[in-house]
Amino acid sequence: MKDNQVNIGILGLGTVGTGVARILLEQKELLRTRSGLTFNLTAISELDWNRDRGLDLTGVHCTTQADEVLNDPNIDIVVETIGGYEPAYTFISRALQNKKHVVTANKALIATRGRELFKLAEENGVDLLFEASVGGGIPIIKGLREGLVANRINSIYGILNGTSNFILSRMHQDELEFDQALKEAQAKGFAEADPTLDISGGDAAHKLTILATLASSAFVDYHQLSVEGITNITKLDITFAKSFGYTIKLLAIYRALENGLDLRVHPTLVPNSHLLAAVNNELNAVFVNGDFVGNTMFYGPGAGERPTASAIVSDIVDLSRNLDQHLTNRAVHLDRAAATVPLTEITNRFYLRFFTLDAPGILSKISGILGEHNISIASMVQLETHEQDHYVPIVLLTHEASEQAMAEALDKIGKLDFVRDNYLRLRLF
Amino acid sequence: MKDNQVNIGILGLGTVGTGVARILLEQKELLRTRSGLTFNLTAISELDWNRDRGLDLTGVHCTTQADEVLNDPNIDIVVETIGGYEPAYTFISRALQNKKHVVTANKALIATRGRELFKLAEENGVDLLFEASVGGGIPIIKGLREGLVANRINSIYGILNGTSNFILSRMHQDELEFDQALKEAQAKGFAEADPTLDISGGDAAHKLTILATLASSAFVDYHQLSVEGITNITKLDITFAKSFGYTIKLLAIYRALENGLDLRVHPTLVPNSHLLAAVNNELNAVFVNGDFVGNTMFYGPGAGERPTASAIVSDIVDLSRNLDQHLTNRAVHLDRAAATVPLTEITNRFYLRFFTLDAPGILSKISGILGEHNISIASMVQLETHEQDHYVPIVLLTHEASEQAMAEALDKIGKLDFVRDNYLRLRLF
Repeated sequence: MKDNQVNIGILGLGTVGTGVARILLEQKELLRTRSGLTFNLTAISELDWNRDRGLDLTGVHCTTQADEVLNDPNIDIVVETIGGYEPAYTFISRALQNKKHVVTANKALIATRGRELFKLAEENGVDLLFEASVGGGIPIIKGLREGLVANRINSIYGILNGTSNFILSRMHQDELEFDQALKEAQAKGFAEADPTLDISGGDAAHKLTILATLASSAFVDYHQLSVEGITNITKLDITFAKSFGYTIKLLAIYRALENGLDLRVHPTLVPNSHLLAAVNNELNAVFVNGDFVGNTMFYGPGAGERPTASAIVSDIVDLSRNLDQHLTNRAVHLDRAAATVPLTEITNRFYLRFFTLDAPGILSKISGILGEHNISIASMVQLETHEQDHYVPIVLLTHEASEQAMAEALDKIGKLDFVRDNYLRLRLF
Repeated sequence: MKDNQVNIGILGLGTVGTGVARILLEQKELLRTRSGLTFNLTAISELDWNRDRGLDLTGVHCTTQADEVLNDPNIDIVVETIGGYEPAYTFISRALQNKKHVVTANKALIATRGRELFKLAEENGVDLLFEASVGGGIPIIKGLREGLVANRINSIYGILNGTSNFILSRMHQDELEFDQALKEAQAKGFAEADPTLDISGGDAAHKLTILATLASSAFVDYHQLSVEGITNITKLDITFAKSFGYTIKLLAIYRALENGLDLRVHPTLVPNSHLLAAVNNELNAVFVNGDFVGNTMFYGPGAGERPTASAIVSDIVDLSRNLDQHLTNRAVHLDRAAATVPLTEITNRFYLRFFTLDAPGILSKISGILGEHNISIASMVQLETHEQDHYVPIVLLTHEASEQAMAEALDKIGKLDFVRDNYLRLRLF
């Protein structure tokens, strides 16, 4: 950095990269007023230069060669907005080795290969920041890492995947089936052509991995999480949840228990009185409990060109404060691995939905098996209507019970010949 | 700072000061892990040393003389938690002159004398941070100043006063009258013996002044705000608001209009579908719209020993990053004064409640006056029940109308001999 000028190179001019370029061009004066620094968009590498992005790139070096950004000695900060594993991983590594600070929104990469990348950053005396990787425009990384720095984080409950939240919201609002809601999400641009990573819980799990690493000050491996998506939820389940006073949300859950971390992503029945139940459509929210602050929530858009770019530029400004000093005191702790508690050792309240033949004694058989496993029933609904080939739905809410016991009981119940095998088990908040 | 040791002195060991001491003692290891720094509670000045605060202050210099903290050359950061104007102002000034960084939760002081204090900090090459002054434990100052640094802030709607929010929530939940709810708030410690500053809107106005200064990057004077409290709201108004689908909240409002800032604190009818309507009891929330990020919300406890201390310690850690460099690039802009738009030039939707004699032609008289002032009625309720000495309530919701026109119309309506003079005008979100 010379004369308070900060030079920035962008790798990838897709949705998010375009947003970053737009902010750097449009808000140059605002950023100067607020930070005392001038941020120059110096170079962009991108393979497809045919698309019109509505940007005036006069004076910006536009290239198809990432190396022209990565090796440019004038560039202080490299922004990676390509996404995915390769070539993003290689490019970020090269930027760090060239002693350039890096800002990225790449949650998949940070969640799965963060450890190597943070190590590389540390070795080269530069920073790797990733505010945009979780919660889009919501400053949750900063909130957790700096705002709540004085707190042991007891728990985090996050709505971290906009696609899933949009689908579930639409199923709640207009009683759509999953497939209809997914199609609407795709039509509105809230779901990709291949939505697997979103609806399977994988994307939320990437983000939870990152939050858990920050919250615990220890390294969390993506594979330590237990992950379940929203694809098995039907219109009927939404209706039942509603009737019990709950809203179904895909929650990413972090709990610091005595013997380790409880880390899960799964659809959850959230009581309607809880603020998270009111977070609808594509929006995200992160509900955090710290031992001094108590309950806090951060809410906002979890994706999109402009919100994600807002988060990236906040990282750029943050980095620039320390550019001359090469301070890297924000590094993630790499030396300690987090201990996790296996799902089987957790207890939860459960929502269970079966389709059974409408015959006498069935309920007593099911509740008998649950009882044998010390699972007690809090409330129950059996509908009279005959649907689904003479099968009728039975829905139970249980009291607190062990996951292990529930898995064993469900295994037995699933084998009963009057129970169809597409039963559903959800958890309560 | 020597050998990564940061020495801290606290002025005032009341509720918040005690919380700060508690974090520095209890979370020393956590803070060291996260920041690489050791934070030492070096000295505390306090007049009343008789109270047992449950702190082990072995090794801490405990004094009744603030100067022993302010003049101690070993102290890097002074935390002011005395509150009020004096001696807090004198002490903070002296600390800054002694080239010590200062952290404070003193919203009244920052809102009314911040300009002088920030100037003094700048002249002495030190920082004055104040995260805890707004929203207690919620990292809203950091969120606004750093997390949303890339955004022009279009609007802020804040529930910033826990006392008022508690009172209004209790009025909503159990249909209490204002006085009953206030008494309950006092009994539960959510309102002070003299609650004037809270229920008059003054405290929320202090906090809005601070947020507005940050959001606009220009200095806002406390007297530029128009402020109205919650004391005139009755159980009846709560009931009417509910019936229209609204919740009454004391909102602190910031809007960046073309010709200046619209800055107001007043009770507001918030639609029940809005997230702010679900922020209940003593909790605070700040709903921010930025031109890139869109809508975000920050939610959490707005007061209390532990949350407020959490925010103060986050400032302490932030400051310590730059302690060696004497970087003060977080200074508030002092050179530009914000332009505000007078209330009379604003338009709003209104809630109007009158008590009138139950006689023919009254409604046409009132609606006639409103019509003369170009105020059109969106909905209206007149109750049949005779109460209040044969006066009956009439409630109107208007379409968008000018504040000036409304003031003139109300002046005329108030003079009608069949209208009691305790009418109420509220605004809609």
